[in-house]
Amino acid sequence: MRKPHRLLVEPIVRGALLEDIGRGGDLTSESIFPAGRRASGAIVARKPGTLAGIDAALLAFELLDPRVGVIEAREDGAHFEAGATLARVDCDTRALLAGERTALNLLGHLCGVATLARAYVDAVADPKARIVCTRKTTPGLRLLEKYAVRCGGGENHRFALDDAVLIKDNHIALAGSIHNAVAAVRAEIGHMVKVEVEVDTLDQLRALLAEPVDAVLLDNMSPEMLREAVDIVGGRLVTEASGGVDLARVAEIAKSGVDLISVGRITHSAPSLDIGLDIAP
Amino acid sequence: MRKPHRLLVEPIVRGALLEDIGRGGDLTSESIFPAGRRASGAIVARKPGTLAGIDAALLAFELLDPRVGVIEAREDGAHFEAGATLARVDCDTRALLAGERTALNLLGHLCGVATLARAYVDAVADPKARIVCTRKTTPGLRLLEKYAVRCGGGENHRFALDDAVLIKDNHIALAGSIHNAVAAVRAEIGHMVKVEVEVDTLDQLRALLAEPVDAVLLDNMSPEMLREAVDIVGGRLVTEASGGVDLARVAEIAKSGVDLISVGRITHSAPSLDIGLDIAP
Amino acid sequence: MRKPHRLLVEPIVRGALLEDIGRGGDLTSESIFPAGRRASGAIVARKPGTLAGIDAALLAFELLDPRVGVIEAREDGAHFEAGATLARVDCDTRALLAGERTALNLLGHLCGVATLARAYVDAVADPKARIVCTRKTTPGLRLLEKYAVRCGGGENHRFALDDAVLIKDNHIALAGSIHNAVAAVRAEIGHMVKVEVEVDTLDQLRALLAEPVDAVLLDNMSPEMLREAVDIVGGRLVTEASGGVDLARVAEIAKSGVDLISVGRITHSAPSLDIGLDIAP
Amino acid sequence: MRKPHRLLVEPIVRGALLEDIGRGGDLTSESIFPAGRRASGAIVARKPGTLAGIDAALLAFELLDPRVGVIEAREDGAHFEAGATLARVDCDTRALLAGERTALNLLGHLCGVATLARAYVDAVADPKARIVCTRKTTPGLRLLEKYAVRCGGGENHRFALDDAVLIKDNHIALAGSIHNAVAAVRAEIGHMVKVEVEVDTLDQLRALLAEPVDAVLLDNMSPEMLREAVDIVGGRLVTEASGGVDLARVAEIAKSGVDLISVGRITHSAPSLDIGLDIAP
Amino acid sequence: MRKPHRLLVEPIVRGALLEDIGRGGDLTSESIFPAGRRASGAIVARKPGTLAGIDAALLAFELLDPRVGVIEAREDGAHFEAGATLARVDCDTRALLAGERTALNLLGHLCGVATLARAYVDAVADPKARIVCTRKTTPGLRLLEKYAVRCGGGENHRFALDDAVLIKDNHIALAGSIHNAVAAVRAEIGHMVKVEVEVDTLDQLRALLAEPVDAVLLDNMSPEMLREAVDIVGGRLVTEASGGVDLARVAEIAKSGVDLISVGRITHSAPSLDIGLDIAP
Amino acid sequence: MRKPHRLLVEPIVRGALLEDIGRGGDLTSESIFPAGRRASGAIVARKPGTLAGIDAALLAFELLDPRVGVIEAREDGAHFEAGATLARVDCDTRALLAGERTALNLLGHLCGVATLARAYVDAVADPKARIVCTRKTTPGLRLLEKYAVRCGGGENHRFALDDAVLIKDNHIALAGSIHNAVAAVRAEIGHMVKVEVEVDTLDQLRALLAEPVDAVLLDNMSPEMLREAVDIVGGRLVTEASGGVDLARVAEIAKSGVDLISVGRITHSAPSLDIGLDIAP
Repeated sequence: MRKPHRLLVEPIVRGALLEDIGRGGDLTSESIFPAGRRASGAIVARKPGTLAGIDAALLAFELLDPRVGVIEAREDGAHFEAGATLARVDCDTRALLAGERTALNLLGHLCGVATLARAYVDAVADPKARIVCTRKTTPGLRLLEKYAVRCGGGENHRFALDDAVLIKDNHIALAGSIHNAVAAVRAEIGHMVKVEVEVDTLDQLRALLAEPVDAVLLDNMSPEMLREAVDIVGGRLVTEASGGVDLARVAEIAKSGVDLISVGRITHSAPSLDIGLDIAP
Repeated sequence: MRKPHRLLVEPIVRGALLEDIGRGGDLTSESIFPAGRRASGAIVARKPGTLAGIDAALLAFELLDPRVGVIEAREDGAHFEAGATLARVDCDTRALLAGERTALNLLGHLCGVATLARAYVDAVADPKARIVCTRKTTPGLRLLEKYAVRCGGGENHRFALDDAVLIKDNHIALAGSIHNAVAAVRAEIGHMVKVEVEVDTLDQLRALLAEPVDAVLLDNMSPEMLREAVDIVGGRLVTEASGGVDLARVAEIAKSGVDLISVGRITHSAPSLDIGLDIAP
Repeated sequence: MRKPHRLLVEPIVRGALLEDIGRGGDLTSESIFPAGRRASGAIVARKPGTLAGIDAALLAFELLDPRVGVIEAREDGAHFEAGATLARVDCDTRALLAGERTALNLLGHLCGVATLARAYVDAVADPKARIVCTRKTTPGLRLLEKYAVRCGGGENHRFALDDAVLIKDNHIALAGSIHNAVAAVRAEIGHMVKVEVEVDTLDQLRALLAEPVDAVLLDNMSPEMLREAVDIVGGRLVTEASGGVDLARVAEIAKSGVDLISVGRITHSAPSLDIGLDIAP
Repeated sequence: MRKPHRLLVEPIVRGALLEDIGRGGDLTSESIFPAGRRASGAIVARKPGTLAGIDAALLAFELLDPRVGVIEAREDGAHFEAGATLARVDCDTRALLAGERTALNLLGHLCGVATLARAYVDAVADPKARIVCTRKTTPGLRLLEKYAVRCGGGENHRFALDDAVLIKDNHIALAGSIHNAVAAVRAEIGHMVKVEVEVDTLDQLRALLAEPVDAVLLDNMSPEMLREAVDIVGGRLVTEASGGVDLARVAEIAKSGVDLISVGRITHSAPSLDIGLDIAP
Repeated sequence: MRKPHRLLVEPIVRGALLEDIGRGGDLTSESIFPAGRRASGAIVARKPGTLAGIDAALLAFELLDPRVGVIEAREDGAHFEAGATLARVDCDTRALLAGERTALNLLGHLCGVATLARAYVDAVADPKARIVCTRKTTPGLRLLEKYAVRCGGGENHRFALDDAVLIKDNHIALAGSIHNAVAAVRAEIGHMVKVEVEVDTLDQLRALLAEPVDAVLLDNMSPEMLREAVDIVGGRLVTEASGGVDLARVAEIAKSGVDLISVGRITHSAPSLDIGLDIAP
Repeated sequence: MRKPHRLLVEPIVRGALLEDIGRGGDLTSESIFPAGRRASGAIVARKPGTLAGIDAALLAFELLDPRVGVIEAREDGAHFEAGATLARVDCDTRALLAGERTALNLLGHLCGVATLARAYVDAVADPKARIVCTRKTTPGLRLLEKYAVRCGGGENHRFALDDAVLIKDNHIALAGSIHNAVAAVRAEIGHMVKVEVEVDTLDQLRALLAEPVDAVLLDNMSPEMLREAVDIVGGRLVTEASGGVDLARVAEIAKSGVDLISVGRITHSAPSLDIGLDIAP
């Protein structure tokens, strides 16, 4: 599985550590424990879920103690039960306690995303539809959240505004028509850029089929309407359903035959998963 | 109300914009709209809630178009209904569309935090307890999330590891006793630093009363046990209840008479509030 | 035409200025001229060419003197003759002289790229092929160089490793076969990512036609072989010729009927265009 | 030979890597190859030339894989033939392929500079003149380009505006006279700063000899005029010829007896040298 | 003793190195010594004092030569005599000479602070008062200076504006009264923030006793007035004397019975301690 | 007079502000004063001195309140008496109070440097010697401190290791001889770099006269020995006296006839000048 490169993850973890350590350092642990004292820490799940971000979490300890020893660590993407040990480290005591909250904040958030993604993916196993995330991510964490979605079995939509084209309702309204918008885009972009267009009605969809695009986003349509849309497309475009997709409704949407279902709440509203750090001297 | 300074907020918003604009820019809008074309945008709530982060959201547009005009904007802390216009801007069309997702991601997240904080605060209005947030925040967004908690009527616990001391179970276990931990801290910190200690039992609490500390965190206690703890303390320390506090249970906890109730989920698990951008030519 | 956003260009220009101003400042001009003295500067082409980067060049003066006045400036993409005035500014004298070299280094480089791109584009006007750049860019200047290519009438290939897939000879050799490589990629990437595969032989090309890819890069093939390749593809893939494409040979390559011709030297070996700054008191 | 310190080079290489890896990582290689798979890579010259920047190129791999093993590497400054292996590494496969373009873009550019510098230096071996570079460098790469010039046997003029004084035609025109400009500079700078003045005529040169300066830049003079200028100076100042110096003309300029010949095109217009990466499993 | 974390110190040392190495590197040492040559360096005190910042100083060498060997190093906080060796390293010769000034500038400054702090602390040993520093620190070095104060036996006042409240004369004047200012603060801050108020008169002090604050800063009072103030407070608040405290006067101030004496000159005016680097081949 | 460019000063002031404002902001002033309230502030000298850094100080307020109005401001380099108003601003109250300490810390430090430099300069007015600073500066503040020295009438030695060569005792010892060191340097540096050599004895000085260098640093010599050294040099080199130069001794040193006297304590040990901020509603 593709993993975000450490070169990209390290600035995020470093920034999170500095946010928590502040300028003065960890007043509590540095006052109580001498430099050099070591301890053993176990990252333990309090609830079941899907693992995502274990490397980022361990990096929090490593940035504070380059000699941290990782005794064991599960693989991202794995399912775990409540009580499971996700990783164990041997670490400088001050570093372990100073890094604890950063590690757990990252891990709880990313496992939350992966676990919710996994729930959506499992709900549309048969008939199969692919669950994709959106750009509705937490500022600063898009790289890691999109990775967590993959850990949960989901797939990524475009990363950002610069790697693919998505013509939405606002673009169409301001441009005057789908045709105008597509033509303008085609004149400007290179041959390695895909184009998707959002439609709200079946008439729009029919008009779209004459345009040189790769995919269609079917926004806020009922399952019945989606089914009709899939028929109209007839395999000529990748079809994506979108709009207020909750877990209870997603299987019904998948039955419409769309290729993809995009779900914003996987990234913007997944509750953090409860994970703790157990420390032994 | 205290507001995070623009000097501190701008790097966050700039980072979020760069995350979304990427290196190539907004392929879609820059292809369709000429430079200089202006449009009007209204930030509209799709659900009711409490406002937080409107300045940060508007800053996303301003960083892309320094000449953006803010026609109207509500004040952070205000309650709004579904359909309410939270702000209106006159903006370069490319900037408006390129900044849309960053502005809404920030605003949806922060209003989500403020709205959940407000729900907790309202639930403990009488008898009154103060709702405080924790360090269980989203990496990179602590400053803004702690502000959003205040917008929702909540209060902030310490910002980070360097502005106050909180001696927790792990510290006590490794130090051998509460007394050892407090003594070590007292020998190292200055006179402007407050000290709070977490206790799990009433025996620990009684022992704590002999120590020079400012507050006690009563962790994972039942409402009955909390009441007894409050009696034991007898006003000599600030009392804070903590641990798995959900909205259904919070009023009962407040009845125990504790001064503060800290709630991690306000910051780590608040769902994003649904807010959109309506654009007119 | 799409233009790189100022938010992205400013750090490049600022970095270039700091590289030239150093820590001590412009010893010469600051010693000779008093603060506040103003002068008029004309950016003048010493050779004919195609304009690219005028905003970046002017930004060098603006970052040193926010009150700089731009009297006139030509549009990027325009052809100019030797002697043409590309822009004129009214500026603080110290800022004008301190920014001169940075502005001209940027502008000379980018006009060099645009002018060479334009030469290639003009050479393949009929029969028409599209000239595209590569990732063989100058470290730190990819954004601006890819823009300069567009100013010269060329188009951009993928921006970087993260916005599209290009399976090259090394990938195929290490993966064992084109099929293995494509299958591995398809299992990992989202629906908005295009896939191109490099082939060296017509047998590879025939095998490729069975794979779900979007484009083929025909590497280092003779014009005759390219013609045959275009026949074999029969419009089922976008075809791109690549490899040691010099200006003398490009028209012949275009006659093969390929859709695109990629040229590394446009970005990595374009000589700087001679542009100067004429100053009047 | 003086080498740029790693502390200064690393940010440049890191920036170049991030420009190419983007935010999403190397979609192609990370999809095809598992983490941990190793491969052997040979950096091979396709054309003869002079080596410069091998450390910077290898650093690209090291930043992606800190455990990269460098099997062999030639020394900067060495001449190499087409087909020569410049370095060989044992590296994580993903890191090797993700770092390839960054390493080659840097190396090709810097060897291009060194090779062109060497050609100029060889052309003026007897009678000997020293070839120096200018501030006409590629934005962001001055440190490395000036080093590449030294690898090619050339020398560096001042690094930037803050380490020496060069009074040019614009300064003289605005100051009213050479005397005014020199006097103003002398009143402001310290005893460790050298002063050079550009002259266009022999009259200016004669006037300059009365001023307390270290060197004279003889701008755009014919070989005959340069010879006369050298006679006039009579060893009292360092003499530097400048202005449109091409390779065909440089030996004739050297015969004039000037100490230095400065050549902008070495840094701003050297074509990239063709260098490739051969990978074996 | 609490020590600033390397994660926080490294950017300061790196910045100081870059300030001194510049963009061109150490022209002198890199010209004279070949890469790889090693030497032994001893950091030697020329004057007696108290050690602070030895890790930061050694880091200067380590950032230039990651393989530097630290043969010996004294502990921060130790007293040393003139001639004492504070640390000895085995280091690349270029790194040793390039890092020398940065290491010594940091160490001389911080030992200067620690030594002056120690002098104040020793002066108030009996009757005991605690010496605290202020926010009158050198821009960019507050973290290290506050640490140096602790090395000298002093204590830290608040770190900055965000970790505690200090209501000063300007606040009171603009707010109208102490009561107004305290009430406004109390309504905004959390339970982990301490509040101190500056008073200039005993009347102000008496009024302050009715307010919910933690400490009082007795500004610019005579020893007699301080004694009266301590009597008035009667142990209800922490008392701090402040204002023009010189070494000759500090013992007399301590006799007043105040808990703390804050001294700005420890950080803003401590002369650098004379420390040198002795190098052996 | 040369002034550090705002592009270079702003990062220093911004860093200093962030160090003091922290992540949580100014708890005190933001709690007490509403946003938008304005106040008038006067920067007033409590002691006489020489002004340096007024722009940097005012920038602290401007970065917090871009609409700050500067009513009046004296020029750097001016002498002022105790009680003098150095600048007056109209500013947002929160910004004025949050920026106060940063502005005063910078200004007090820089005026301290300028004032001490002025004292040395005045002490050697007749016979005239030039006072120069060294690289013994406060980490992070070299640019501003060297400017402050100029404000006090002093001059700058080289800025850093990369703009000139200074061969010191350690270099000579490790290189074997002055001749070896100078020859190695001459082979590596360009024609715009000056070379100075430190000598401890008159024999060394005589040997040095045969070498191609620009200046000699006469280290730790008595006034008599300096006089003899000046005679030996006979105007062939710039002469600089150095080593433990205190204010009482400097005039005597100047009488020896040396050109320059370098004084480390001007930058590393100048006490901060007492300057305050008076605020009116």
